[in-house]
Amino acid sequence: MDGLLTSEHDAVTVIAPAGGDALHRLAALLDADLAATNDTIVARMASEVDLIPQLAAHLIAAGGKRLRPLLTLAAARLCGYQGDRHIRLAACVEFIHTATLLHDDVVDESDLRRGLASANAVFGNKASVLVGDFLFARAFELMVADGSLEVLRILSSASATIAEGEVLQLSTQNDLGTDIPRYFRVIEGKTAALFAAACEVGAVVAQRDPALCAALAAYGSALGMAFQLVDDALDYAADQGELGKTVGDDFREGKLTYPVLTAYAAGDAAERAFWHRTIELGEQTGADLATALDLIGRHDAIGRTIDRAHGFANAAKAALAIFPDDPVRSLMMDAADYAVSRRH
Amino acid sequence: MDGLLTSEHDAVTVIAPAGGDALHRLAALLDADLAATNDTIVARMASEVDLIPQLAAHLIAAGGKRLRPLLTLAAARLCGYQGDRHIRLAACVEFIHTATLLHDDVVDESDLRRGLASANAVFGNKASVLVGDFLFARAFELMVADGSLEVLRILSSASATIAEGEVLQLSTQNDLGTDIPRYFRVIEGKTAALFAAACEVGAVVAQRDPALCAALAAYGSALGMAFQLVDDALDYAADQGELGKTVGDDFREGKLTYPVLTAYAAGDAAERAFWHRTIELGEQTGADLATALDLIGRHDAIGRTIDRAHGFANAAKAALAIFPDDPVRSLMMDAADYAVSRRH
Repeated sequence: MDGLLTSEHDAVTVIAPAGGDALHRLAALLDADLAATNDTIVARMASEVDLIPQLAAHLIAAGGKRLRPLLTLAAARLCGYQGDRHIRLAACVEFIHTATLLHDDVVDESDLRRGLASANAVFGNKASVLVGDFLFARAFELMVADGSLEVLRILSSASATIAEGEVLQLSTQNDLGTDIPRYFRVIEGKTAALFAAACEVGAVVAQRDPALCAALAAYGSALGMAFQLVDDALDYAADQGELGKTVGDDFREGKLTYPVLTAYAAGDAAERAFWHRTIELGEQTGADLATALDLIGRHDAIGRTIDRAHGFANAAKAALAIFPDDPVRSLMMDAADYAVSRRH
Repeated sequence: MDGLLTSEHDAVTVIAPAGGDALHRLAALLDADLAATNDTIVARMASEVDLIPQLAAHLIAAGGKRLRPLLTLAAARLCGYQGDRHIRLAACVEFIHTATLLHDDVVDESDLRRGLASANAVFGNKASVLVGDFLFARAFELMVADGSLEVLRILSSASATIAEGEVLQLSTQNDLGTDIPRYFRVIEGKTAALFAAACEVGAVVAQRDPALCAALAAYGSALGMAFQLVDDALDYAADQGELGKTVGDDFREGKLTYPVLTAYAAGDAAERAFWHRTIELGEQTGADLATALDLIGRHDAIGRTIDRAHGFANAAKAALAIFPDDPVRSLMMDAADYAVSRRH
């Protein structure tokens, strides 16, 4: 299975040097813009209330992949934008993303009862929620200072869609009755909406015509779908020793993702009983993850997930055909391939 | 103690008939606008994701006091506004308020360990967070549709201030080193900021000059301070049998409010040891609330809290002096008195 995910590329790091995978190379090309975005992020998460920068820094300043702001910067560059508004808007996009991460860290009482640890263990649920709220509000303050109602429209709409996607995911959790269209609605909301908005905003600041704005939104959306499908595949396939997610997190949380839905649909009665017990009832023992991986392998569920991701990556590349050939366009197309080939 | 809070007024209910306290009478005067605001609220909290309207209805449609949207409607009316934008913006204000309530419901692991129940028990932490996020994003979508960057500026700034106030409250929880200025910063953020913004927005849609907008913001801010001080007093004084808060919630949560800070500052060594154990260490037994109430009574801490609230109510009324005499202005002034005299 792992072979399907083989890649010669390295892990994504912050403002990477040239060389390496498509995202490294895109980040290197946009190095100055990314550095300016980082400065804006650090400056604007400041607050007299100490806990805010402390907790925000935990996620932001420590450096994430900066994937979404990178998309805003790349889209603006692809559209020939010469100003500096894209810097501030890239920071907004990262604030919204970080707010959703903080809110995703919130743990339910039931999870606590089941002994699931959380990334927010240091600070607690409440701090995660409130600092997320601050970053979300700060993102809107930055957009208001930028002054484009169109940008505000795109990012407020994306924010509502993200929340809907997350609530839908919560509703489908532990529910094997979830079908593929519903799963796609979840990941469109929780992932693709912000990828799409991040790209579209870059075209909007460049004041390009609606067709180009829509093309970049389509690119971002398809790229987000590919990324999320591969994330969901890696949760059952990633090499435990590598950087990134631990295998089995989604399994332990009872998340209905493409690999599980595929294996469940193809499974016999005994297999379905296994998924029912482990995912729907959440009754898991130490050996269950190995069984889950085995069933997923038996039905080539990782391969089929990656195939779907390939389809979205191709759609992402096709959406950029409207733009003339250009180094940024090439790297954005390569990024779509990388979304599928990456191992973490 | 209770005598200080004596009032002949009834509880605030949704869109009340004429008669009764100042808020009832203000709501009666703005009856048609409030009904239209309710319709907008119900229409705009719709989502294809069922859990969203379910949970939102739990808080919104069931009917809260609608105090903040009432302020927006009243401010617009006081400014002679004739259009209908204030309806949508009043709904935005209520959405932001409801989002903060939902996020306030989130329970920390430590609270669970201490056995504190929460209002979100039915739906869980995660649902509260995500539906709050949806309402917050939806509020911004509505503001974008309205199209005023000034309104967006006011409400995004208020939202950031609310989050800062809530985080500061979290930082001061269980900390008897909190001083009065710090307590005021907390309630300015968590309560007064949205009261101020709700009022200011009403003046902004009426396109009145900056002095009038600022006067309404000052009225709202002072009114919010008075309301919160009285809320904090009622938590140690309200008649358990009445509608509204249960006595002792803040005590059990270790919240540092004006009555406690006052009693602590005036207390002797034995009293301070009591507060240290019950508030800072959170070690409470069944008899402690009665002792707390006794100490608070001994130092007239409720009376001193209400005195402070009176000061803010007077400031609120003074801020309206810039407007000509008018039935709406009179009721808004009466509302400031009611904020102090209410019993729940």
